[in-house]
Amino acid sequence: MDNWAWPSVATMTRNGQAAIVLACEHASAFIPPDLKALGVSDDTRKSHAAWDIGALDVARRLSKVLDAPLVAGQVSRMVYDCNRPLEAPDCIPAKSEIHAIPGNADLNDQDRQSRFDQIHSPFHDELDQVLNAQISRCDSPVALITIHSFTPVFHGKHRAVELGFLYHSAPALSQAALQIERGRGVLKAAINEPYSASDGVTYTLIKHAEARGLPNVMIEIRNDLIDTPEKAQDVADHLAQTLRHALAQIQQEAPCS
Amino acid sequence: MDNWAWPSVATMTRNGQAAIVLACEHASAFIPPDLKALGVSDDTRKSHAAWDIGALDVARRLSKVLDAPLVAGQVSRMVYDCNRPLEAPDCIPAKSEIHAIPGNADLNDQDRQSRFDQIHSPFHDELDQVLNAQISRCDSPVALITIHSFTPVFHGKHRAVELGFLYHSAPALSQAALQIERGRGVLKAAINEPYSASDGVTYTLIKHAEARGLPNVMIEIRNDLIDTPEKAQDVADHLAQTLRHALAQIQQEAPCS
Repeated sequence: MDNWAWPSVATMTRNGQAAIVLACEHASAFIPPDLKALGVSDDTRKSHAAWDIGALDVARRLSKVLDAPLVAGQVSRMVYDCNRPLEAPDCIPAKSEIHAIPGNADLNDQDRQSRFDQIHSPFHDELDQVLNAQISRCDSPVALITIHSFTPVFHGKHRAVELGFLYHSAPALSQAALQIERGRGVLKAAINEPYSASDGVTYTLIKHAEARGLPNVMIEIRNDLIDTPEKAQDVADHLAQTLRHALAQIQQEAPCS
Repeated sequence: MDNWAWPSVATMTRNGQAAIVLACEHASAFIPPDLKALGVSDDTRKSHAAWDIGALDVARRLSKVLDAPLVAGQVSRMVYDCNRPLEAPDCIPAKSEIHAIPGNADLNDQDRQSRFDQIHSPFHDELDQVLNAQISRCDSPVALITIHSFTPVFHGKHRAVELGFLYHSAPALSQAALQIERGRGVLKAAINEPYSASDGVTYTLIKHAEARGLPNVMIEIRNDLIDTPEKAQDVADHLAQTLRHALAQIQQEAPCS
């Protein structure tokens, strides 16, 4: 990593006016050339192991439709997973589902710290800044919404759920969104699926939103629904409506003083 | 364009400390799905007609190596070319070299204005903001450097030049960079090639840098030298050294008061 130097984060719609900040930790499959693809195959480089397929397209569309800032990672989660602390065993995975990642196999503490400093820290510093700016700008509590995607098949098993709303200890926005999705009857939605918060997937939510007492939700979309820009646009437009209603509902239930 | 809504610009290394701002107008080949690929073929969508191949990889690397903010376009130049004013006949090209662009053929003034408002304005407003912030932060004059790429073959003719430094009326940085490149003897460099400023390609430089009396240069790289991340990294690292020396040189010749 000595000569490694690439931006780890990009921000869009920074001046958006909504009381929302979007984050997409797994937006990019980019692996710095010096890391020699971490020794994985071309197929793995393009797979869910490397990034959340379609998530950035959805997040970008939501950012513009909702007029909300979006903070997006610029490096593959195989290099460092920005939704994990350095303490997590899978922050720099040596294996991802069925894929071994040889370039991550024999890292020492200094290597791991270096990736954390160069990828995790800039991403979370930027998200911190953008959240603070949005909190200053908005009268309503600012909601943090993270956008992810998951594979239709995991360890050989098909996942029926299409849309997950995940939370750690602040369920309000997830529950409101689920209720609205069920009312609409378009997508198969569920709470804390296809993973649960106990799998350590709500790191970004806890670090930034729970720490500030802000409403928050992690949205997981099955990636076969968003694997083209056209499909991603349709799902984003659908989600934008659900989120608008859900935010209005929790705002009504707990208006800011 | 009524339902079109996507971020038109992304910014990286916003807190970079160098007296440099980088811009990459043609960073993205993205065409909003509603525009139905503007009626062009898949090959054209991936070609130089759609974006400057490799330019974003070079710009991202420079951004981090030089510690300079980077403002990058997020929409294909076939939708709107951010290096052109609305008055330019080719700001929304109906033809690009040999490629016809049917989706741009019959636009009325309102359509053109809409693309300008949604793509050109956010990009240039962001560049304006980032430049102002960098000027406030830095003691030295802030240099604006735009990163572009060109095709090895144009209208059937091979281009021997590999690297062009382009300017409109402020030659200092281009000339210093050329002198250094010639001394290094690695790339075939030239001033105002493969285009000249009279072709209207220095719009961004004029609008932002000349208007403020800032040093500036448009860098054009032949795209066969940067069409993989590995090659882009090598060229960016080479350019970073040239730019550091060139900026030191013009700074010495005209120190800020």
